[in-house]
Amino acid sequence: MKNPENDFIPITAVEPLVRAVFLRVGCDDANASALARNIALAERDGSHSHGLFRLPGYLASLKSGKVRGHARPSVEQVTSAVIRVDGDCGYAPISHDVLEGPLLATVHSSGVALAAVVNTHHFSALWIEVERLAQFGLIAIACTSYKPAIPAAGGRRPVFGTNPLSFACPRPNGSPFVFDQASAMMARGDVMRAADAGIMLPDGVGLGPDGVPTNDPNLILKGCLLPFGGYKGAAIALMIELLAGPLIGEVLSVEAAVRDQVDGGPPRGGEFILVFDPFKIRRDHNFASHAEILFQEIASDVDARLPGEGRMKRRQEVAEKGVAVPPGIMAVLKEN
Amino acid sequence: MKNPENDFIPITAVEPLVRAVFLRVGCDDANASALARNIALAERDGSHSHGLFRLPGYLASLKSGKVRGHARPSVEQVTSAVIRVDGDCGYAPISHDVLEGPLLATVHSSGVALAAVVNTHHFSALWIEVERLAQFGLIAIACTSYKPAIPAAGGRRPVFGTNPLSFACPRPNGSPFVFDQASAMMARGDVMRAADAGIMLPDGVGLGPDGVPTNDPNLILKGCLLPFGGYKGAAIALMIELLAGPLIGEVLSVEAAVRDQVDGGPPRGGEFILVFDPFKIRRDHNFASHAEILFQEIASDVDARLPGEGRMKRRQEVAEKGVAVPPGIMAVLKEN
Repeated sequence: MKNPENDFIPITAVEPLVRAVFLRVGCDDANASALARNIALAERDGSHSHGLFRLPGYLASLKSGKVRGHARPSVEQVTSAVIRVDGDCGYAPISHDVLEGPLLATVHSSGVALAAVVNTHHFSALWIEVERLAQFGLIAIACTSYKPAIPAAGGRRPVFGTNPLSFACPRPNGSPFVFDQASAMMARGDVMRAADAGIMLPDGVGLGPDGVPTNDPNLILKGCLLPFGGYKGAAIALMIELLAGPLIGEVLSVEAAVRDQVDGGPPRGGEFILVFDPFKIRRDHNFASHAEILFQEIASDVDARLPGEGRMKRRQEVAEKGVAVPPGIMAVLKEN
Repeated sequence: MKNPENDFIPITAVEPLVRAVFLRVGCDDANASALARNIALAERDGSHSHGLFRLPGYLASLKSGKVRGHARPSVEQVTSAVIRVDGDCGYAPISHDVLEGPLLATVHSSGVALAAVVNTHHFSALWIEVERLAQFGLIAIACTSYKPAIPAAGGRRPVFGTNPLSFACPRPNGSPFVFDQASAMMARGDVMRAADAGIMLPDGVGLGPDGVPTNDPNLILKGCLLPFGGYKGAAIALMIELLAGPLIGEVLSVEAAVRDQVDGGPPRGGEFILVFDPFKIRRDHNFASHAEILFQEIASDVDARLPGEGRMKRRQEVAEKGVAVPPGIMAVLKEN
């Protein structure tokens, strides 16, 4: 990523610069702030494929009017354990801000709570919302679909979105444990970055538009991404389609694609967010110390890796070296 | 599976024969019936590795006193959306019988409900309980852990159980859609059957006791099974450990192993069962017809496969040809 043409800016500069860009294209203050915070968090932890890299997509979809920069999400209590959040056709981060209070209240009384987020556009990493919830001592799971990118097991035509699944839980000291993984063997954002960089990909990442395996990221972007883990990963992708779509009354990836304006931004769809309060369920405060037995067992196997370790290392690097900004993105930030 | 030494019995004979065996070793009627029904369902649908094949393990653990054949599970309503089922140290099927009514009532009012099943011994397929719930129009997810069998990503020592995950949802006509998959690339039961049959396994299934990859099922049974899909499958296995263990106040696989008597039966542990009522969440009766758009899209891709298709085909074969019973198992059934 250290391209000599890139400029570096301090991580503290990202949020205010990006917020100003969103205000300039017509977002209101709440929407611009929620989006800028989200992008800054992605950059802070080195999730570059969900950070400034996506700014052109955000801007195109706001300018085309597909995504509303003045979205005012509304929350409805559906049952004692279910809330429904209508994202008002905005980006997801403003919905996350609005749902947080009602979701915390719901899970506090019910022990398990579902936030069915509808009419939203999700364009970022999912770890941001689950980590935020785990910082309250909760266990959180989130998933969303997208436009068709992954075929069913054995298939040749994309039917599932890249369908990320994210999980977070508290740890006794410091940051929550978090993973966030696409159902594709490789995330679409990483394939896009490989295409931009002209890098060929390993076997098993995808099929070309003819349904034949290829190593060329440009062909894979026109064809499909293969699921991780063969038919078992395809089953996970299928489950996510149903949870983030039909279960909450939102679209499947195949339906999202039909109604999408192809402007570079994400389609309108749903997000499934499930939280558990372990204190309510197990009736003591020992979840984190109990789970830690597993994390320590893993740590004692010298070659074993835990998800999220790389992110914490990159956070340190970004704090020291700043964020690399390609010239095209820098032009957008400076236009301000 | 068509070994010339095997006898064949009609599928209708399995449940009464097995029930008689369980009564003979001291189970009460409710426990014997629940177990016999479970084994018969596994055989009916060709899940042979969870059927009669496991009878010696069931019997050994009942005879050793580790598992109670007179278990009387109890249900407690913890919150409006959480029930806790104490399995009274019996096998899981009797808990499933006891929890069904309270779980249906809970999800009917809350839209989402968690059954935290503790103090139970799970030795069967998970599709049996989730399919049963999906037949009521619900979406059901179940998972459980076991004894350490799978290492963390990059690791060499087992820390996760085989950790199956099962999902079911209703379809408009006929049987629910169901998948049930171990977090291992290959289920332990299938590795055991390969060992019995003297068949070598493909690359990627497991490591020997020295932490080195091997194709020998006997070495893998002494070492560890690798997760499906590399580090992403390992993350799924980790999530299952936490949901079916610390979240519900039950043991991790590493803890289950410590307290287990090694008698051939499963250790005592927990099961996580989560159900959603789509009517409550989306407020119409269209979940199944909506989800069907995805299933039809998959069916239209000629090479694509859906989980569960093989099981329905095997159900037909078993109905026609009967169940193959190896001599050792037949001796147990006839002893009666």
